[in-house]
Amino acid sequence: MSVKINPDLQKERNTATFVPEEFTVWWKGGQKKYEQILALEEMFLNDPELKDDLPISYMSHKELYEHAIRKSVRIAEKIREIRNNGEDNVETYNALLGGSLGTALLKEGNPMALHFVMFVPTIMGQGTMDQQVEWLSKAWDCSIIGTYAQTELGHGTFLRGLETRADYDEKTQEFVLNSPTITSYKWWPGGLGQTANYAVVVAQLFTKGEFRGLAPFIVQVRDEETHMPLPGIDIGEIGSKLSMKSVNQGYLGFKNVRIPLNHMLMKNQQVLPDGTYVPPKNSVLTYGTMMFVRVALVRDAAMALAKASTIACRYSAVRRQSPIDPKEPEPQIMDHTTQQLKVFPIIAKAIVFKANGENIWNMYNTITAEVEKGALDRLPEMHALSCCLKAIVSADAAAGVETCRLSCGGHGFMDSSNFPTLYGMATAVCTYEGENTVMLLQTARYLVKVYGQALNGVKLVPTVAYINEAVKTKEFRNFDGSMESIVRAFQFVAANKVRIAYERMEQRRKQGYGPEVSANMCGIELTQAADLHGRAFLASSALYELTKLSTQVSKALAEVLMVILELYLVDACLNRLGDFLRFIDLTDSDVSNLELRLQNCLKRLRPNAVAMVDGFGIHDRILDSALGVYDGNVYERMFEEAKKSPLNKEPVNQSFHKYLKPFMKANL
Amino acid sequence: MSVKINPDLQKERNTATFVPEEFTVWWKGGQKKYEQILALEEMFLNDPELKDDLPISYMSHKELYEHAIRKSVRIAEKIREIRNNGEDNVETYNALLGGSLGTALLKEGNPMALHFVMFVPTIMGQGTMDQQVEWLSKAWDCSIIGTYAQTELGHGTFLRGLETRADYDEKTQEFVLNSPTITSYKWWPGGLGQTANYAVVVAQLFTKGEFRGLAPFIVQVRDEETHMPLPGIDIGEIGSKLSMKSVNQGYLGFKNVRIPLNHMLMKNQQVLPDGTYVPPKNSVLTYGTMMFVRVALVRDAAMALAKASTIACRYSAVRRQSPIDPKEPEPQIMDHTTQQLKVFPIIAKAIVFKANGENIWNMYNTITAEVEKGALDRLPEMHALSCCLKAIVSADAAAGVETCRLSCGGHGFMDSSNFPTLYGMATAVCTYEGENTVMLLQTARYLVKVYGQALNGVKLVPTVAYINEAVKTKEFRNFDGSMESIVRAFQFVAANKVRIAYERMEQRRKQGYGPEVSANMCGIELTQAADLHGRAFLASSALYELTKLSTQVSKALAEVLMVILELYLVDACLNRLGDFLRFIDLTDSDVSNLELRLQNCLKRLRPNAVAMVDGFGIHDRILDSALGVYDGNVYERMFEEAKKSPLNKEPVNQSFHKYLKPFMKANL
Repeated sequence: MSVKINPDLQKERNTATFVPEEFTVWWKGGQKKYEQILALEEMFLNDPELKDDLPISYMSHKELYEHAIRKSVRIAEKIREIRNNGEDNVETYNALLGGSLGTALLKEGNPMALHFVMFVPTIMGQGTMDQQVEWLSKAWDCSIIGTYAQTELGHGTFLRGLETRADYDEKTQEFVLNSPTITSYKWWPGGLGQTANYAVVVAQLFTKGEFRGLAPFIVQVRDEETHMPLPGIDIGEIGSKLSMKSVNQGYLGFKNVRIPLNHMLMKNQQVLPDGTYVPPKNSVLTYGTMMFVRVALVRDAAMALAKASTIACRYSAVRRQSPIDPKEPEPQIMDHTTQQLKVFPIIAKAIVFKANGENIWNMYNTITAEVEKGALDRLPEMHALSCCLKAIVSADAAAGVETCRLSCGGHGFMDSSNFPTLYGMATAVCTYEGENTVMLLQTARYLVKVYGQALNGVKLVPTVAYINEAVKTKEFRNFDGSMESIVRAFQFVAANKVRIAYERMEQRRKQGYGPEVSANMCGIELTQAADLHGRAFLASSALYELTKLSTQVSKALAEVLMVILELYLVDACLNRLGDFLRFIDLTDSDVSNLELRLQNCLKRLRPNAVAMVDGFGIHDRILDSALGVYDGNVYERMFEEAKKSPLNKEPVNQSFHKYLKPFMKANL
Repeated sequence: MSVKINPDLQKERNTATFVPEEFTVWWKGGQKKYEQILALEEMFLNDPELKDDLPISYMSHKELYEHAIRKSVRIAEKIREIRNNGEDNVETYNALLGGSLGTALLKEGNPMALHFVMFVPTIMGQGTMDQQVEWLSKAWDCSIIGTYAQTELGHGTFLRGLETRADYDEKTQEFVLNSPTITSYKWWPGGLGQTANYAVVVAQLFTKGEFRGLAPFIVQVRDEETHMPLPGIDIGEIGSKLSMKSVNQGYLGFKNVRIPLNHMLMKNQQVLPDGTYVPPKNSVLTYGTMMFVRVALVRDAAMALAKASTIACRYSAVRRQSPIDPKEPEPQIMDHTTQQLKVFPIIAKAIVFKANGENIWNMYNTITAEVEKGALDRLPEMHALSCCLKAIVSADAAAGVETCRLSCGGHGFMDSSNFPTLYGMATAVCTYEGENTVMLLQTARYLVKVYGQALNGVKLVPTVAYINEAVKTKEFRNFDGSMESIVRAFQFVAANKVRIAYERMEQRRKQGYGPEVSANMCGIELTQAADLHGRAFLASSALYELTKLSTQVSKALAEVLMVILELYLVDACLNRLGDFLRFIDLTDSDVSNLELRLQNCLKRLRPNAVAMVDGFGIHDRILDSALGVYDGNVYERMFEEAKKSPLNKEPVNQSFHKYLKPFMKANL
């Protein structure tokens, strides 16, 4: 069946100056990865058992869970198949459990995801060789399903606050697990509610009556045959949420639950049978996993923005509304400058985040390799960078999705646009894996420290080297509006924000406050400094990565990429104009020029905007949006989706006869 | 049963310096209105038929609709009772159908609301006396249920783009209604899907083959006995959405549907039996309803922020996390400066929006009274003001709700926090009743026009009089940081933003572009000018209203109100710092002083923050939040809510036996 393409959309494609597929190959990580992804999409999206008849937004909570279990089992079966063929790799799990494909298959989340992405890796990372032998084959085979239980009802970011206790009993060589308070109940772990039968539980370890720190334990929570909760285990799901409704996040309380000694994961720290505690040698390595996850989140943010801008951009080409010239028919809304300002910077941001994601991914790998050789000195830098970038890109991604949604008017409000789900997922990232404000404060702590070093003449590591410059130069000169000067200006502004945080902290110290209290009093300055540091990094890294990329592609694509880069930088600068004007002596005409350049960038991107989002190469099933379909038959698709509503399956709903009619006739 | 108050929350209440109830009386609109509201709450919240056993987030779409019909009928019965007792007034309908109480009763919206708030008023406003006699008693009695069908699948804000046709057939003295295209289907009207049997339909009127403009028609869409759709009527619901899931928004298409001549609402324009068209005398009066609704939305925005900040503030007093001083226990998170920066400005904004709502409500009434005497000259000013305020307060309310939600960490993500619903409702306002960007452009059109007048020496009307000043004074002097000077600075900045929009428009005109094309090219400048105009109004009106209020209350309350005012103004200024620094020569120490004052305001509000939100006087059932409960027993409530999940009603879900177990055992 050949599908008619909406003529407005076809026109956009006909007049584009570059070939989207060339961009797609870079976006997907190179030809080979691109093909792997296509093969996975083929294998999973065409499986009839993984297609939905009824959109999940019509299901009850319970139906949704049962639906999710059916599908997650089907996905796990196929993963098992791939694994048995020896064809699995990290990308497979990423794509199917966390990535776009996984989300397309199970829109509100996979209740078994944490088994693969947390339970198995934790055993690998923290179990001894014996423990790995014992548990990994069962886990890989899925003859047990696990999750990772750390967060508690009253305790999140601050790990040392966790209250769950594991007391070692030498007499029986067992740990006794207890949840002493309501706030100590485990709360949030995915799959914990009704799905998993095992969990890695993080608890306060006590041996010989003494507190030893936190430790991870493997705990069976449900019977392997009957799935009934085991004695002493109080377990269930935490209830409905803004998004990720089918992840089956759970709560878990313990009452004198006994587990054998060898169920504590002992690679890093040990408890001997007599209760002797052997502490871990090096705690710095636990940075690793958190950094890895945060780096991955930068790439996810790029994807969220790519999806949102694809929907908004295509719809903006199809939708006609509000005449510009009263003599002409209603134009494509993409011709309204205000619409361009909403959508195009998000396209640019998607690409810049993607380029940055690659950049810090490489940096992470370099530093991890150094760490494995024992060189730990770049770890704090990388930690600081990953924290603020996590905060910035997640906040920007959530805001960007909403900007795109709102640019689609009322229709963006419908579930068939897919924006509600996209937002639910994007905004969740602001909180999980380190709440954003906490992340910024972590970065800021590092920045203030290195600022002090810079004052003392210490040469700083690459990502903060700009602070060395700024300490020397009090004034920023020669702002010529070039992209290089915008990047330098960003760094200068960031350095001054760090300076202010540093100086205010010093003032508070001189007033007699301790370091922690001073830091709290300067919390606003600190978070702002970290924000600017991250944004300066994004700007400089965008300049570097996209300039480099443009030398490796066709001239046509290179030209568009340069527009994207300029748009990103000018927009970023105008969005922080207060900081720029505070520290840099820009004239009114400098500002006017930036504003006019922004408009000029929008105008230059206009003819290639649709081609650019086509270049993201997002499968219609993955985009899952009536407004964003590749063929542009938006209204037909909206109608099709509406017809799926169970209320539309019968001409008269029973509630008419039961409630409405008796009421309407009551006065007659 | 006496309930134990959380000690941290009790401590806050014990140490507050003012009595919240004094503030509550003002917030509720005076003692008399307060008592009316309490009486309504008593009557409706205690009705056992209006209580829910199962939280709606667990229901399927269809269950939710049937639940909503049951409850909306019960609400309508009680309204009928109140009406029959002659005790109904505008406030009753506001409270029960649009207001907080209505939302508490039917969280995702009332499918019969549009009957009362649009169908009935439209007949009253646009029907002739005969038509009112014919239709109103049936409508008031609810022996027919109507809705208002204007927006179409392809046409929203730009009314003249509507495609539904009503062709007058003189031979039978009937109109023939048709939906010529898919984009002409009515789309979005509340209650249209399965609920209403009548609708006011706005269509293109043709008589004698000529297009006459838009006109409203009363159309029966379903049989009064069977509720079956009538011949030629294609009707259903549009499907699931981000929020307002039980409003039953519908679509509607016509195929040669014939209605009698007297079903056109003819107060303003007429069609005579022979097809002669009599046009309306004055179209300016249709401004009225739209302005009314937008003015009401300012008050709704205040309420949204009051709810969100109540939840966040109480939770911030109860939640303890992340030590400030490592020697101390984890503090209430409200002691973190960064947390204060999230929550306290939202409290201030709620109060400022409320005060503004009262202010423009009075202005609206004054101007409406003038209009009724034939004086139309302040109408454009009021229209311009209501447009930009609608855009600003709805955008700020949505953003404020999210800031509060995120300030509650992961728990804000749960439906039991009520944040997801609050956000869904708040963000919807950005789009309905005039999409925000379109609103800002409407205001800007007015501003640019009056700017030209000011250049010609015309004395402008009150809300734009500051432009007269700015045209004379090129430089802003004497910024002393006082609240008055912040307000004047806001006006100066707004005037300069208007100037830039005006000048850039002029430039485009000189380059040969027509006025509309120039306006589109300057869309960014125009929307920014309108935004600053609205913010300058909010600032000046906040100063005026809150200063006035503080002279009418106890000294203790007055002091807190002045902190609120200062916090609002300083925060607003720092949020537009780029604009301030561009047009006003502030020194670095001016900026530092503003920043330190912001921190000082946060510190001063800290002891009274909980008392302030207590002062909003929001009933626990209306707040509907486990995190925001008055007694502060947050964790117990979260648990209670979790236990309501249907998945927690049985120890093992059937999907274990059906899918999970066979899969887990497959490899053994």
